[in-house]
Amino acid sequence: MDLKSTVRTIPDYPKPGIMFRDITTLLADARAFRRVVDEMVQPLAGDKIDKVVGIEARGFILGGAVAHQLSIGFVPMRKKGKLPHRTVGQRYALEYGEDEIELHEDAIEAGERVLLVDDLIATGGTAIAGVKLIEKIGGDIALCSFVIDLPDLGGAEKLRGLGHSVASLMSFKGA
Amino acid sequence: MDLKSTVRTIPDYPKPGIMFRDITTLLADARAFRRVVDEMVQPLAGDKIDKVVGIEARGFILGGAVAHQLSIGFVPMRKKGKLPHRTVGQRYALEYGEDEIELHEDAIEAGERVLLVDDLIATGGTAIAGVKLIEKIGGDIALCSFVIDLPDLGGAEKLRGLGHSVASLMSFKGA
Repeated sequence: MDLKSTVRTIPDYPKPGIMFRDITTLLADARAFRRVVDEMVQPLAGDKIDKVVGIEARGFILGGAVAHQLSIGFVPMRKKGKLPHRTVGQRYALEYGEDEIELHEDAIEAGERVLLVDDLIATGGTAIAGVKLIEKIGGDIALCSFVIDLPDLGGAEKLRGLGHSVASLMSFKGA
Repeated sequence: MDLKSTVRTIPDYPKPGIMFRDITTLLADARAFRRVVDEMVQPLAGDKIDKVVGIEARGFILGGAVAHQLSIGFVPMRKKGKLPHRTVGQRYALEYGEDEIELHEDAIEAGERVLLVDDLIATGGTAIAGVKLIEKIGGDIALCSFVIDLPDLGGAEKLRGLGHSVASLMSFKGA
């Protein structure tokens, strides 16, 4: 099956010039969804992974499925103010302004091996904040895994430059 | 294992008098998470289910895992303005004001059997809007499944009153 063809491209969303890569069509396709989860865990075969961290919101869908596949726990990384217990936060720059993501401070034990999951990596702002946050509470990043890479935006390269392993299942040119 | 003991209760969150039931501790526990997914699909053994619909945001984590367990597709039900393609929406009342949830109009095919998943049912406002939305685009609700029921708030009873099957894995008294 051609996994890439199950992603729907929506031109000029959310603003003119952006080709939005919509994975809802992939997720709704039983065989595509199953295959994505299989391929996301494949690089980790034989490794001991303790937790999957999924980034809100699409990373929750994929991360929940991946954690279930690996029979390990899932940890949500959320936008500021959404987690009910004590948190640690990490700010990151947006095109205009900045944003912040949070983890519960007790979500990962020191030394636990973590798989970070999101649907897409573009400039890498959120993912880089995410790995910093996981390391801040003592987690050890085993792999950062994405369905889609937009290599022209350089996020995966930046993550690799920070010493992290990065995997993606498909890539699209442009932004 | 005592599944209920893996849920963390946070008093007076998000406001005084509310006992917030925090499932992040359950999700992070490999055995508890696995067991929750097993128990959520158990009432459907032998049934043909076509899609899992998960309600943003915690319903994405559970719904992603449940869809993976059933080897079927996943459909996100999101807050207004978050889905990139053509949507249908359903408003519902909040304690103060109202809110709206959306589905992609092509997310479910007419006659498909749907499992609706969320973490918790309280007054049932979101879940009832959710079943209306699924039916609006032609889906047939097989089951509404929640980890936690707050029976004193009556949501599960209202859903049953509308003719829907409802399952939950645990309940807590009060709000």
